Amino acid sequence: MKVVCLAGGVGGAKLAFGLMRVLPPEDLTVVVNTGDDFTHFGLRICPDLDTVTYTLAGLDNRETGWGLTGDSFTVLDTVAKLDGPAWFRLGDRDIATHLTRTGLLRQGKRLTDVTAHLTRAMGAGPTVLPMTDDPFATHVITEEGDLEFQDYFVRRRCEPRVERIVFASAETAKPTTEVLKALAAADAIIFAPSNPFVSIEPILILPGVRDLIAAKPAVAVSPIVGGQAIKGPAAKMLLELGLDVSPVGVAARYQGLITGFVMDEVDAALVATVEALGLQVRTSQSIMRTDADRESLARVCLDFVSTL
Amino acid sequence: MKVVCLAGGVGGAKLAFGLMRVLPPEDLTVVVNTGDDFTHFGLRICPDLDTVTYTLAGLDNRETGWGLTGDSFTVLDTVAKLDGPAWFRLGDRDIATHLTRTGLLRQGKRLTDVTAHLTRAMGAGPTVLPMTDDPFATHVITEEGDLEFQDYFVRRRCEPRVERIVFASAETAKPTTEVLKALAAADAIIFAPSNPFVSIEPILILPGVRDLIAAKPAVAVSPIVGGQAIKGPAAKMLLELGLDVSPVGVAARYQGLITGFVMDEVDAALVATVEALGLQVRTSQSIMRTDADRESLARVCLDFVSTL
Repeated sequence: MKVVCLAGGVGGAKLAFGLMRVLPPEDLTVVVNTGDDFTHFGLRICPDLDTVTYTLAGLDNRETGWGLTGDSFTVLDTVAKLDGPAWFRLGDRDIATHLTRTGLLRQGKRLTDVTAHLTRAMGAGPTVLPMTDDPFATHVITEEGDLEFQDYFVRRRCEPRVERIVFASAETAKPTTEVLKALAAADAIIFAPSNPFVSIEPILILPGVRDLIAAKPAVAVSPIVGGQAIKGPAAKMLLELGLDVSPVGVAARYQGLITGFVMDEVDAALVATVEALGLQVRTSQSIMRTDADRESLARVCLDFVSTL
Repeated sequence: MKVVCLAGGVGGAKLAFGLMRVLPPEDLTVVVNTGDDFTHFGLRICPDLDTVTYTLAGLDNRETGWGLTGDSFTVLDTVAKLDGPAWFRLGDRDIATHLTRTGLLRQGKRLTDVTAHLTRAMGAGPTVLPMTDDPFATHVITEEGDLEFQDYFVRRRCEPRVERIVFASAETAKPTTEVLKALAAADAIIFAPSNPFVSIEPILILPGVRDLIAAKPAVAVSPIVGGQAIKGPAAKMLLELGLDVSPVGVAARYQGLITGFVMDEVDAALVATVEALGLQVRTSQSIMRTDADRESLARVCLDFVSTL
């Protein structure tokens, strides 16, 4: 069964890791949001691509949820001493990723090829694809004004109230040939438990993507569990955008694209409401603390989608 | 006595260090070549500015002649493991300098202000000024074609035969207000023993600089000693450009700008030839191995220029 997993950062990376443990590497393609990407200090940084690649390569830092395990911070500590812009914490080996990426991009390589280079060099098995090679930047319009995503997410710690999300360059960005081919060849699509607004939506709005997904068996995993986001600002965003802070709010956003929805056991009382949206539902323990949790949730998704 | 020292990299930095030991910091301004600057991995790297700043701050690596003493190489070693472009060796703390600089430049700051920020943060006493805030790039036209300076200097190790030197953007580059003011206020100008073609010449061709220097007492120190360059490709360049590989060849290039010339004792036999160019000459031990050597040569220059 050829599977495409749509992913943002940590939640997407964890489910992709679980899928990797079940599927042969050639049958798994992870399509990753690039709306969070930004240029900092002149370096091209792709937080979601890196989180997915580091996780698949077994190099992710599980304590912090970002960066590489056992990384050192000589560079950023020195930047701080030089009164430089040190608000975005980058480990030394993480910086090596960004230097290599930026160097290869400046040689004219596509982000898709650079990502293939990096995943190969790090030993990540499945195919990791950026959703697009084109400019695309998620902006969060807040009470404090228009913030680039990392500015909102890291520097302002998701504190300003969100009014709406805007995707700069979305009109001109195209999914890559590799993404379109992977979706067309897929037997199943799995939406990872990533932020629906800023991780999954950027992938979905690229031309052609929705139609390819709607033609396939597809399941989404709720990133909202018990009225809270597992990680990140998804719950706060749902609330501030006037939406239902529950799996129901997430499922409603994916209506017409998915046929199955996986939500946590703690939200069992909401199953009937999601089913009323015309979706089939599975409940499962969905918080992925251990490798076994990741693999178990991956099996639930794969079993489920194979019945659709 | 207000002194302006014109400098490239290592030789310039060493003499500037010696001058710093003799003069109060407010009386010394080092005007530094930016023709070697380049963008690598997206980072703005200014080798001569950094060598001068690191040296004045006492942070320079005296064993290698580049970078910071005691620096680590976690980032570049990791780039090499990722099959990234690792030919330009950068230490971790050195990378912090480039990240900080690039970050501040991207905020819209001028290189002059960024350099002031970095020299202050590192505790370098005298004023260090880039010769220009404008684009300016030294190219070496060789038998292998047109090479950017660092490509020639580091990647190709100065091996290709030089046909000529070209300064890209030289028509539009202007010296900064700070450089013009420092030259106008100077009581003496000292040309460090830097490469006349690629370190000093870029400063001299900026509009207005030659006239300001010609109006002042000025001495140059020969970077050629005993038919060899103290460091770098100056001797090889003189030879390949069909010029005299001796202090005489250097002195001839500075004719009309300087009135005094300092050359090494080993070249005493050439004093009359340089004097025949209309220059006053002092001989001195001019290889700067120790702090005392640096200070001693600085004193020779200052004593000499005060008599002109």
